[in-house]
Amino acid sequence: MQPSKVSRDSREKLLGHKGAVVWLTGFSGAGKSTVGFALEQTLMSHGVLAFALDGDNVRHGLCGDLGFSPADRSENIRRVGEVAALLADAGTVVVACFISPYQQDRDRARLAAGDHRFFEVFLDTPMSVCEERDPKGLYVKARAGTVKDFTGVSSPYERPVSPALTLHTDAETVGESVERIVGFLRDRAIISEG
Amino acid sequence: MQPSKVSRDSREKLLGHKGAVVWLTGFSGAGKSTVGFALEQTLMSHGVLAFALDGDNVRHGLCGDLGFSPADRSENIRRVGEVAALLADAGTVVVACFISPYQQDRDRARLAAGDHRFFEVFLDTPMSVCEERDPKGLYVKARAGTVKDFTGVSSPYERPVSPALTLHTDAETVGESVERIVGFLRDRAIISEG
Repeated sequence: MQPSKVSRDSREKLLGHKGAVVWLTGFSGAGKSTVGFALEQTLMSHGVLAFALDGDNVRHGLCGDLGFSPADRSENIRRVGEVAALLADAGTVVVACFISPYQQDRDRARLAAGDHRFFEVFLDTPMSVCEERDPKGLYVKARAGTVKDFTGVSSPYERPVSPALTLHTDAETVGESVERIVGFLRDRAIISEG
Repeated sequence: MQPSKVSRDSREKLLGHKGAVVWLTGFSGAGKSTVGFALEQTLMSHGVLAFALDGDNVRHGLCGDLGFSPADRSENIRRVGEVAALLADAGTVVVACFISPYQQDRDRARLAAGDHRFFEVFLDTPMSVCEERDPKGLYVKARAGTVKDFTGVSSPYERPVSPALTLHTDAETVGESVERIVGFLRDRAIISEG
């Protein structure tokens, strides 16, 4: 048995861009999936193989055995971080959309992917705005106590210590947020110009 | 929040091939990783984004919390099946190299990826040949009882019921095995001619 003979360089040459992880973190309702899916679509339109990961495509499969206790949420983020690293190894630009409230969990995801290709993007939307949007009706349930350990209401959110980018989704459009991330990826030479 | 706006078609168009899972199963020493890594390299040389998964790139990360008890081995294969499905969703041709001794576990991996793009490839190498090769010295340890639950010695191997392909790595070269898989993927229109 021998290790893979396919280098990261040969994947980059085939795809025309590098593999990376764009990790969107923030409150429920901050717009992570909205921005994430729009980013995925924009990158694809530029010929970049992008892939969005969010609760919907991991909670039923890979993490189907996990619940929502603090320990299970941490394990959920650990596995997502490892899968994101594998997808980035395969050459894709992964767009991970998870509340991921703990710095330690996000740092572990960074470690899995490698510091030079993991970018923490903080959706710094005030909780009052997120609660007003309440797209899934979860804040109402959290206030009523029928949803437990809800980030921002009954469970803490640790703000990123030094995010690569900070987005203000209450003050900028989805398109503006996406363009800022795309510009950032160009600056870091993950994707090329044009 | 809305689901992804990127269709499987648009990924296929970008890459020029479909996403799929080639699942290599067989005894330790049958040549799964040898054939798998050679297949990965050959596919890449044809411009196909291929990615090999084996114990080395999941046992330390994604499945680092798992041991080698029957239950943990089953959970290991379950997670690998889910990750392979996600990588195939992202457009890659995944080459999974795992003993995966139980039909039920392999069927679950098939279910995760989808029947039309999951191909079970059986490395039907006689155990006597595998034991003679013993590349990792594990058969010696299994016979001595220092490695437990070892497939073929102290743990069963369920032969695939109806594999897409059967390889005889004791009678054909690695290159021949690889060419048979590549030909199969062309026949199924996963990758294109030439």
